[in-house]
Amino acid sequence: MSLIKETVENIRPLDESVFKEARAKIDNLVKPIGSLGRLEEIAAKISGITGRLHNVINKKNIIVMCADNGVMKEGVSSSPQNLTAILTDNATRGIMGVNVLSDYVRSDVTIVDVGVNADFDNPDIINKKIAYGTKSIAEGAAMTRDEALRAIDAGIEITEDLVKNGYDLLGVGELGMGNTTTSAAVFSVLSGMDSDIVVGRGAGLADEQYQNKKRIVKKSIEINGADKNDVIDILSKVGGFDIAAMCGCFLEAARRRVPVVIDGFISSAAALCAYRLNSFSRDYMFASHLSAEPGSKYILNELGLDPILDLKMRLGEGSGCPLAFMIIEAALHTMNNMGSFKDAEINDDFLIDIR
Amino acid sequence: MSLIKETVENIRPLDESVFKEARAKIDNLVKPIGSLGRLEEIAAKISGITGRLHNVINKKNIIVMCADNGVMKEGVSSSPQNLTAILTDNATRGIMGVNVLSDYVRSDVTIVDVGVNADFDNPDIINKKIAYGTKSIAEGAAMTRDEALRAIDAGIEITEDLVKNGYDLLGVGELGMGNTTTSAAVFSVLSGMDSDIVVGRGAGLADEQYQNKKRIVKKSIEINGADKNDVIDILSKVGGFDIAAMCGCFLEAARRRVPVVIDGFISSAAALCAYRLNSFSRDYMFASHLSAEPGSKYILNELGLDPILDLKMRLGEGSGCPLAFMIIEAALHTMNNMGSFKDAEINDDFLIDIR
Repeated sequence: MSLIKETVENIRPLDESVFKEARAKIDNLVKPIGSLGRLEEIAAKISGITGRLHNVINKKNIIVMCADNGVMKEGVSSSPQNLTAILTDNATRGIMGVNVLSDYVRSDVTIVDVGVNADFDNPDIINKKIAYGTKSIAEGAAMTRDEALRAIDAGIEITEDLVKNGYDLLGVGELGMGNTTTSAAVFSVLSGMDSDIVVGRGAGLADEQYQNKKRIVKKSIEINGADKNDVIDILSKVGGFDIAAMCGCFLEAARRRVPVVIDGFISSAAALCAYRLNSFSRDYMFASHLSAEPGSKYILNELGLDPILDLKMRLGEGSGCPLAFMIIEAALHTMNNMGSFKDAEINDDFLIDIR
Repeated sequence: MSLIKETVENIRPLDESVFKEARAKIDNLVKPIGSLGRLEEIAAKISGITGRLHNVINKKNIIVMCADNGVMKEGVSSSPQNLTAILTDNATRGIMGVNVLSDYVRSDVTIVDVGVNADFDNPDIINKKIAYGTKSIAEGAAMTRDEALRAIDAGIEITEDLVKNGYDLLGVGELGMGNTTTSAAVFSVLSGMDSDIVVGRGAGLADEQYQNKKRIVKKSIEINGADKNDVIDILSKVGGFDIAAMCGCFLEAARRRVPVVIDGFISSAAALCAYRLNSFSRDYMFASHLSAEPGSKYILNELGLDPILDLKMRLGEGSGCPLAFMIIEAALHTMNNMGSFKDAEINDDFLIDIR
């Protein structure tokens, strides 16, 4: 059995009984029922994920899948293509947004080359390169079906290693010029939504380039004719190595029952691919924030996930994940340490009134 | 000159030149301009507040103003009146929501009795008691004008002490049965908005009690006839000791140029009072979250502040403040530690494209 098949088939639902136990425990804390809002939801969901009532995060990691996209030659981005390689290298030097935010929350960062158009002489970049970038989706398939499967495998393997090394909260992000273009194409095919609605300005396109980007996404979808019911077909025809590898991360995290945090637009497109391969995988995901990229809300809606934060961010790199980690850990700390009504010496007569 | 007059008259605007310097520095970090969204806004605003480009928070404190409200006898709350005293006591025992969240972010908590209807034998509760609760606003003024001024003074004094003790990030919350009723009345008079729109269900009112609460708020506003242009008149007639004292906290924080975080509905009503006394005070405030209490969005709109978080919380106690502290500190850490384009060895040709 292939790695991806084995992974997808071994994703199980949340532990309903521990989830309910957690809800009951939370309802008995000294506060009006539901008054801690999403913190309560988050803590209960983590209990359902791990199967444990009491959860403490020991080690956090943000996986950054880095890859180049052939569609860059169509002028879909305001950035030069070789910026991918420069930023990938910089992400191992601690100076990028994802680095400093991860440092603040004491999370590690894993930088993976899954298809950057450059060779690195850098031991801190994990080499899972499938190719030196994809082909342009505006001219045909981005990659072969076999390459798509190998990119997903790369994500599965990286995630498996992290879980084996004790990481119990993961984030998934990316670096790659042109990947809002591929993400918009992937999401448009998966959802059937008009690509014009989901294409955004990325890092900051002017009007004319923005119109061009919309045309390129529409054209790419038309000429490739991907089967909307075949996630691998979609990823190989209009996706990218980064999206495919991130999809693998989400699948493996769900299989290993480890909570996994989606970053922004591109990360959520990959999460949706995982969801379509096995819908249980969604129950292991948290959406860190609502990206300022306009398609994000549609993807999260399709996933049925509410973003934890809305800070108008659109940086990528997994930079939304550390901020969500803080909220998740605060939620766990609260549910583990708040007193019950009994601790507060509030008796049953009171409970009748205030609960 | 009275303490409040002196405080109000010494609130100055943000330091525009340092604010602009901070914006320029942020725009030169290795990311597309604006891509860190609200984190950028927060960091620049703190620079404008402190007058320093580089800001690190050393000591955090959440002030919880505790008081009882005479209007409780009108059946406006699902909780018994003496729960205020029980929870005030518990808030010094580390088991309440605000305690565990503050513990998680390493913030101290200051519990102040500004008018609880009980005597405490507890050295961890600061005694600033004006009276054993207010009178019912449904029957006349909650307190005298002199009492309102003394409650504001209490907030000013507490805040002054904290600033002198090195606290450089403050949060302001409350504990007091019936205070969503008084807050709705205060906001309705201040804004001219129909009180039916701003009255919510508090800790969880059933339909009939909710209709009663709306009637009581409307009646209280009518019989008191507070002058909508006189904040002290409004606070004394339809407010509470907690709201007045919190108003003093916001004023003094602004006067001392210390960033101050609003918690939820009640806290924001007090913040709006401070804003009306001196509109510059608003520039020192951050709205931690959008409370689930329906009037919150109208108050924040009147204040012109966007909430940092929206976690559907409605606990009060200042519990939203520690979560906002995390985002604020993450913003400062990011702007202090991210690399510039130069650090990333990205030259000017690139900059033309990506900035």
